[in-house]
Parts: sequence; C-alpha cells; structure tokens
Amino acid sequence: MAAYFNMETLKFLMFNVHKLEELLLNERYNAFDKESILLFLQSVADFSDQDLYPIFKEMDEKPAKFSEGKIHVHPKIKDILIKQGELGIIGASFDEAMGGLQLPATVMHAAYFIMEAANNHIPGYAGLTAGAAHLISSFADKKYHEQYVPNMLSGEWSGTMCLSEPQAGSGLSDIKCSAKPLDDGTFLIKGHKIFISGGDHEYAGNIVHLLLARIVGAPAGTKGISLFIVPKYKISPDQTLVNNDVITAGDFQKMGQRGYCTAHLVFGDNDQCTGYLVGEPNKGLSYMFQMMNDARIAVGRGGAAIASAAYYASLQYAQERQQGRRLLSGGRKDESAGPTLIINHPDVRRMLFLQKAIYEGSLSLILQSSIYHDREISDKENNNHWNLLLEFLTPITKTYPSEKGKLAVDNGLQILGGYGFCADFILQQYYRDIRIMSIYEGTTGIQSLDLLGRKVLMENGLVLKTMLAEIQHTISEGKMDERLIITAKELEDQLPMVEATLAHLIPIAMKGETEKFVSDANLFMEAIGTIVVAWQWLKIGITASNALNSSDAAFSASMLKNKLHTMRFFYKYELARNKSIFKIIQSDEVLTLAEDEAFPD
Amino acid sequence: MAAYFNMETLKFLMFNVHKLEELLLNERYNAFDKESILLFLQSVADFSDQDLYPIFKEMDEKPAKFSEGKIHVHPKIKDILIKQGELGIIGASFDEAMGGLQLPATVMHAAYFIMEAANNHIPGYAGLTAGAAHLISSFADKKYHEQYVPNMLSGEWSGTMCLSEPQAGSGLSDIKCSAKPLDDGTFLIKGHKIFISGGDHEYAGNIVHLLLARIVGAPAGTKGISLFIVPKYKISPDQTLVNNDVITAGDFQKMGQRGYCTAHLVFGDNDQCTGYLVGEPNKGLSYMFQMMNDARIAVGRGGAAIASAAYYASLQYAQERQQGRRLLSGGRKDESAGPTLIINHPDVRRMLFLQKAIYEGSLSLILQSSIYHDREISDKENNNHWNLLLEFLTPITKTYPSEKGKLAVDNGLQILGGYGFCADFILQQYYRDIRIMSIYEGTTGIQSLDLLGRKVLMENGLVLKTMLAEIQHTISEGKMDERLIITAKELEDQLPMVEATLAHLIPIAMKGETEKFVSDANLFMEAIGTIVVAWQWLKIGITASNALNSSDAAFSASMLKNKLHTMRFFYKYELARNKSIFKIIQSDEVLTLAEDEAFPD
Repeated sequence: MAAYFNMETLKFLMFNVHKLEELLLNERYNAFDKESILLFLQSVADFSDQDLYPIFKEMDEKPAKFSEGKIHVHPKIKDILIKQGELGIIGASFDEAMGGLQLPATVMHAAYFIMEAANNHIPGYAGLTAGAAHLISSFADKKYHEQYVPNMLSGEWSGTMCLSEPQAGSGLSDIKCSAKPLDDGTFLIKGHKIFISGGDHEYAGNIVHLLLARIVGAPAGTKGISLFIVPKYKISPDQTLVNNDVITAGDFQKMGQRGYCTAHLVFGDNDQCTGYLVGEPNKGLSYMFQMMNDARIAVGRGGAAIASAAYYASLQYAQERQQGRRLLSGGRKDESAGPTLIINHPDVRRMLFLQKAIYEGSLSLILQSSIYHDREISDKENNNHWNLLLEFLTPITKTYPSEKGKLAVDNGLQILGGYGFCADFILQQYYRDIRIMSIYEGTTGIQSLDLLGRKVLMENGLVLKTMLAEIQHTISEGKMDERLIITAKELEDQLPMVEATLAHLIPIAMKGETEKFVSDANLFMEAIGTIVVAWQWLKIGITASNALNSSDAAFSASMLKNKLHTMRFFYKYELARNKSIFKIIQSDEVLTLAEDEAFPD
Repeated sequence: MAAYFNMETLKFLMFNVHKLEELLLNERYNAFDKESILLFLQSVADFSDQDLYPIFKEMDEKPAKFSEGKIHVHPKIKDILIKQGELGIIGASFDEAMGGLQLPATVMHAAYFIMEAANNHIPGYAGLTAGAAHLISSFADKKYHEQYVPNMLSGEWSGTMCLSEPQAGSGLSDIKCSAKPLDDGTFLIKGHKIFISGGDHEYAGNIVHLLLARIVGAPAGTKGISLFIVPKYKISPDQTLVNNDVITAGDFQKMGQRGYCTAHLVFGDNDQCTGYLVGEPNKGLSYMFQMMNDARIAVGRGGAAIASAAYYASLQYAQERQQGRRLLSGGRKDESAGPTLIINHPDVRRMLFLQKAIYEGSLSLILQSSIYHDREISDKENNNHWNLLLEFLTPITKTYPSEKGKLAVDNGLQILGGYGFCADFILQQYYRDIRIMSIYEGTTGIQSLDLLGRKVLMENGLVLKTMLAEIQHTISEGKMDERLIITAKELEDQLPMVEATLAHLIPIAMKGETEKFVSDANLFMEAIGTIVVAWQWLKIGITASNALNSSDAAFSASMLKNKLHTMRFFYKYELARNKSIFKIIQSDEVLTLAEDEAFPD
C-alpha cells in the first residue's frame, strides 16, 4: 500500500503536542481513552487502505458525469457511504443522544485527514452529510431531527449545503432563491443553486439540502436570508418518499476532484418544491455559519491531507530514483561513483523538507483549532476564551494549508521532473486536486478580509491579544530549553513586526478608509499564517525535545530529531520571509484602489 | 476573438524599450525596417487568431493519443505546419543563404510569443524543427543541410531533439543510446529515447531527430557523447524515403499541453537504424547546447505567453463579473449600490497587477536576451560582450517566466473563483499547461545550479560584473528622471545585497564545499531573477516616462501611465521581498545536505 500519511506523526501531534488525553478527562469525552481512539483511527486507516486509496486514480480518470438528468459517480461510493456510517465516521463528533459517538472533533478531523490523504474525492460526501445533519440537530425542530438525522448518520442519506447561485457566489446578500410561506407552515422553494458539492448522485436514498433562501417580503441583503431543509424526496405521511421537484441540471466538470460531483440544482421549477424552515426566519446566515466554520477547518484539512499524500509520493520517488552525480570539490561531478539517489541532492532535500514543514505544520494547526473547538463545547466555564482563539484561527486554518499546501505539492511534483507532469504518476493529480482548496468556502481573499477586517478588530482587539498571549506562552516555554532558545527568540522577534504593522493599519481603519485598510489583507494573512504555523512548529519542537530528553520510547530518536530539524527548516526558509512582507504592508504607497489614475489594461 | 496578448505592449517593448530599430541598422538585418517587421507580426497575429486559438481548447479535450504504433494529433496540425512554413516562421531567423528570412531572433521570439499565447500546444513543433535544422546547418556536413533543411523550413518535415532516456533524464552523462560505426561512414543507432516533444505524428512527411548517442568505445560521461541525424525515414539514393527502424512505443499522457505529443521512441530495435554523425565525434553535447540555449529562451517565452493569455482572460472576467459590494467607512458594505464589478475590489486589482507585472516583465526579459543574441551574431567586434550578457541571462530567462508565470496564472484562476476551477473556463487549462515550463530543458533546480555554480563564477566573475554594469547603467539613467528616482534607488539598494550574498557564498566555494555552496541556488535564482525583471521594469519606466514627456502620440497616455503604475507595483510587492531572501541565503545554518543527522522521513 502506498504511504500517504504517517500514523506515528499523527499520534505524536494528537497525544503529545496537543495533549489529547487532557481533553479526554472532560466528562463529555470520558467514554474514550487513548487506546480506544487509536483503535478507531486504525479502523479508519484500514478502511482508507482497502476502500478509498485503490479507486483514487480511477475516480479522476472516470470523473462524475451528468447524463439524462442524473449524475453518475464511482459505483463503489454506495458501499463506502454505508461503511462510513457503520464505522461511526459520519456521526463521530455528534452527541450520543443524537446518535453519534461523541468523540472529540479533533479525533473526527484526524479520521477525515487519513481518508482525505487516501482519496480526497470521497470524504466530502460524509463531511457535508454530517454538517447538514448537525445544522438540523442544532437549530431545527426536533421532528426534523427524527425524520432526517438517523438516516444521514448511517450513510443511507446524504446532505449538502446550498449557498451559491449563478449571480451570487460568495456575495450572499444577492441570493435570489425564494421561499413562499404555505398555510401548513412549510414553504414553496424556487431558484437555482450551483457548485453544490455532493449535490446529487444515484447512491443516496435521499439527499437533504440545507438551503439559503429569501422568504417573500424579507429584508434585502444578508438580513433577509433564511435556512431551509429541502430534501430531494419528501417524506409523505405514510413514510414513503416522494419527489420534491428538485431537478439536477448538470455536473460541473472540473480540473481536479473530478470524482466528487458538483451539481447545478433547480428547485421548484414545477412549483412543487417544499422547504422546511430551520429555526427562525431571516436568521439563516447565522445558522449556516456553524456549518461554514466547520467546513473552513475541513477545507484546510483537505489541503494538509493532499500535501501529506504528495509528500510521501515524492519522498518515495526520491528514495528510489537515481539521477546525476554528487558534486565534488571544485564543482566537478563525481563521475566515478555512478548516479546517486536524487534524495542526496541538496535542492531535492530542500523541496522535501519544505513539503514536510508545510504539511506537518498545517496538520498541527488543524488539530490546534479542533482542540479549541472541543474545549469550547466541553469547558463551559471558559468557553468564551476558547471561542476567541478558534475565531482567530479559523480563516488561517482554512487558508494556510490551502495556499502553502499548493506550494508543497508543486515542489513534490517538481521532484519527479518530467514524470511529475505525466498521468502515470500521481503527483499531477494532487496538483490539480489541491487547487480548489483556496476557493472552497470563501476564497483566500475573503478569508483574508475576515482575518484583518473582522477578527483583528473584534472585541476591541481582544481576540488578537488572546491569540498572541498563547503564542507568547509557548515562546516562554521554548526559551527554557537550550535546544530551542534560538527558535523561540526568532518567533518572539516576529511580534513587534505584527505590532508595527497594526500600528500602521489601524489608524487607516479609524479614518474610515476601509478599502485601503484591507487592500493588503492577503499579505497580512500570508505573514500571520506563517507565524501561527511557526508557533505550531515551536510546540512540536518543545515536545520532541522533551521526548528526546526523557528518552521516551514511544517514538524513535530519529523521528524526534527529524522534527527538530524540520522546525529549523521552517524557521530558516519560511518564517524568515516575513520581515519583508510586513515591510510591504507598512508601505505608504497604495496601488490597488479602484480610484487610482492607472488601471490594469 | 479573445484577447490573449497586447500588440501595443509588444510593439512598445520591442521598438521603444529595446530599440529594435538600432539593431536593424546592422547590415545583417538591413533588409527590414519597422514597418516590414510589424507587417510580419501582424500576419502571425492573424494566423494565430484564425488557425491557432480556435482549436486550443479542443486540443486539450482531445489530446494526442497513441494507438497501433502511431501518434494521432489534431487534424489541423498538417495545414498549420505548412502555413508556418509559408509565412516564413520556421526559418525566420535563419540566414538567407540557408533559406531563411534572416530576421532578428528578437522578431522570431515575438512571433512565437504571439502564437504561444494563442495556443501553446502548437508552436513547439515549428520551434523544434527550426532548432534541429539550425544544428544541421551549423555543424553538419553541407550535404545534410541540402537533404534535410529545406523540407524542414517549409513545414513539410519536422525535427526533434532526442536527449532523455528512461534511466537518464537530465543526467546526460548516463546516456546509453549507442552508435556503431559502419564502413560507409554512417552509424547503426540503438536505444530508447523518452519525453520527445513532437517526436512522432502522422502529419510530418519525415521527422528528423537530432539525437545524442555514444559511439562504441567512446569515453564515459559527457565527454563520450556524439550528435547524430537520425531521420524517421532515410533518403535512398533514388530520393525515395525508406523506413529507418525508428519505432514509436507510446505517447506520454500529461496534465497539460495535452495536444502536443510527447513520444517514447525506440531506435534500431531491428538493427537497421542509420544515424549520420554531426560534426566531430564526442563533441555532441557542445553542439546540442546551441539548441538547448535557444530552447531555454523558448521555454521562458512559453511561460510568458501563457501568463499573458491568462492575464487577459482573467481581466476580461473581472471587467464583466459583478460580485460583492464596495467597502464603506466602518467596514460596512455598500448594500444600496448593488453588486460591483469585481475589478473594483482591491484584492482583485492586486491579482491583476501582479499578473501584468510578471508577464510584461517576463516578456521584456525575453526580448532583452534575444537582443543580446542578435547583437552577438551581428556585432562581431563586441560579440564576446554580448555573449557574456546572454550567458548570464539564459538560465534566468528560462526560469523567471516559468516559475513566476505559474504564480501569475494561479492568480488569474483565483480571480474567477469557483469558475476558475471549472472546465468551462480556460484558466484551468493555462494553469495545467504552464506547469511544464519549470521542468522543460532542465528543471529550475538545474537552471539555478547553472546560474550560481557556473555563470556567477565564469571568467572569474566577469560575466556577473558585466551584467551588473548594465543594470547600473539603467539605474543611472533612471535617477535622472524625477518620476523614477525612487524606483532607481530601490533597484540600486539591491546591489549591495547581491555583493553581501556573494561575499558569503564565494568563500564556501573556495573551500571546495561545492554542495554547500549551491545548496540554496534556488533561492539565489529567485532573488536574482526578480532583480533582473525589476531592471526590465525600470527600463520600461524610463521609456514610458520619456514618451509621456514628449507626448509621443504612438501610445496612449493611459497605457504609459499604467506601465509606470505596474512598475511601482512590481517594486512594492515583488522586489521588496528580496531582502529577506538574501538574508536566508546568508544564513550559516545548513539544513539540506545529505550528510545531516536528520533527514526527510
């Protein structure tokens, strides 16, 4: 079986760096211990090896296709969805009372990370089903929970989120899809939805759409959007399923994730599409944000998972492929020795360490956000504290693994040279697949606006302050370890740059020049993302150094040394780029406002 | 017709920035004037509009395919090759005496740039044919010129370069393909060649391979490699064409450039493949470098051309697509005004200017290298001076447009959001196509070794010194223009950083620690490439500023102002990143040598 992730690293990050066992002390999670969680993850890994990875390339080569009103996906999807239900994956983090396992979200994300590294065209089906079910459980009338959720968690029915419309992608205030109230309390839904991941396929007994629409007469903009359950088949009083006037108009053909269907759906073309209101009218967007926040973590996780798979594929190639000669003194090539393994070339090692630094740092960040999420829902006393940290990290956790994961996979492909570009090797598929991650759930531009325009300013800066205090805490810990003093100080040196950058930006916001204030939000995201991942690497370094000192037999010394080495790689090659980026943001020269005399031509 | 390049910008760069008319004063080129060159380029543009662009998407969707021993390419290729012959494109820069137009290579590259922006799957056929014909004309016995070259320049026959073998991609010292001398002075060729662009298709009357092989008993390594003409069909005494035992074993299926075939060829499987030695035995690699040097410029040109096409496609989308609201004071969205064109969002403008800055800067660099090439062959008195400059710029001209072009196209795709990922839009094709440019003709890693390991040290630093003097000359000019003082000084500030970096690196080379010396060659390439393109932008700025001062009616004031604006964009956002990169290279911490205790795992 091809290596696409590393269980030892995942365990190390979960239990040692992020101290999952401390979380398990909380009564919400006390049905689990380390052993039972490892058993669960091993069952997911076995399932991924046996069912997901073997069809990964085939799903790309024979993509989801629309014909005669239906979308056809890989025939194994049916069994896979059921199996995911049986393994408890879909309801992994749901309350027991809701039919779930009540596992920490951290464990759920780890499970999805494994599956996505094996085959990123599949886990979205389960993930969206869980997200949709979670919305129903959280905000809808209990009767809807009973009607829909058990069949969704079992893998028999699927779920989606329906936001985008042809004229309104990320601009949700322009949603046109309408909902007309009927006498029985239900609504008549009418409109188009596009880019609906998992939006239709033949292997779901029913597809439960969680859809944003505007009740007739609702206020304009985002304040007039409501959330509806709109099933493909509605449940009649005698429990039979009847057509609900949801028509599939097409499947978007894409550059990557070609096995994962992306539907264009038409609701109520025959005026017979029933929707069931979730919660209160006009509050749809705030409900949907629950699903969107979880989905943002999930997108980052997808980026990290693909980067992991690409790393191990390129590592394997570099360990097997002979090419070129070692360079001797004076620049001569070592012709006598014969070709060397390419892993011995410094530039190939650079590309490998870059991938490893990005993917492991990204994975650690995803687990960090998940831990905050788990603490938020299990530690009621301090839930605001954990929520602030999660709020700050969410756009970064979505963006860093997506953007830098793209760079990592690019380097993985490059290691294979011409073969990397060829369909016979898998790198080109990872290269295409990962490209969607910077777009899903709000582009990098939108995430950057969220970070700089909302999160930095939120609660008068308390969110940012809380985050920086966490980072400072890790720095202080690092400074006490001789192996880590330099690293900790390098991270500490970043903090005044953040301050100086904000000292430049905040007055612009205060003056009300909002577009100017956020015009370099993308660069701000780039620099802050790198700091946050550097913080993760310092945490990893502290844990590895402690384990080396205690000669902890759970992990090999070579693995622990490699972690410390990769940490230094991240600081030398990635964190060190930040100084220039912060300087750019602090420049007084503004070149990207629409009011400029000059324009792109 | 879709816009994929801008003739005004091309003219401005050729005739104003790079002063092509001065070159035309040389007697080699004095059959041409500005008008005749513009007519030639317009005919290429018309041909590109009518014949190349319309089949671009189709060539991707129905890729070149191998079946029953043959490679099938798009049926229009036959006519296109002949038309390129008729237009004089294939022999554009050849001596008149050789059957060419004797145009400057600069004009030839401009013509290919237009064609590649229209459809990058096609110009490689003509480019390789020209390169192969040029090798024959330059180094082979005159009889071979007569036998092959006229049919190649007319577009009836094709040419290729055959270097890579399954066990030896860029490691040419490990070439195994053998050549056994026969009594009649010809050779029996035997071996496999892979990744042969344009290596076989049904629309060439003959395919003339320029092939590297080892004469039986030749020395090991690169000193034992000879160059051969190996036609698909050999010319019998009665001028009929007979099979030459060149078998097509397959066509590599690729992520991009799918319409451009990439063959696996087997030579002499039946011991009946004849090769004709070019020049002297064992000097094959030095001959091949003529073609490879030209090909490196051509690859950079391909990157710039795809980036150009992606820029105009995303610009058009940004000018038509409405989404989101302008941001008002206090971060509120302007809900009253309705959705705005996305080109009004600062982050979209940033992505547009980034593309424009990269593609126009890259195009200018390609023309700069071509001008040096033309001067080298036409200005015999100073040809060494021009050669030094071209030597230095060649790996950069190959790499910058390939690597940064990838970044540019990535930003183009991002502007389209979800649509950018969909097959209905062209951006995803550019994204896949451009990825090969960092691999063709030696990966970025190999180009970076060439730059730092060879060019910087060459002739005791004279090459670098000559280059820096050229840049300093432009800086001095810029400092005399009030509009450009800041820009010129920012470029001047880079030079001490280059010096400091070399002061760090050269002693490592002197100590003979060659692998350590080149371990960050990739970062050195990144920073130097940005300086060289910043130099091009300063040249563009000087020219635009002069034209504005003289109210030169040849170009609109808005175009000239946009050039100055984009220049500043490049300096603010790209050049300013260099400081951190140079610092990284100057770090004493070495993390990528095979002898390290830690390793990628």
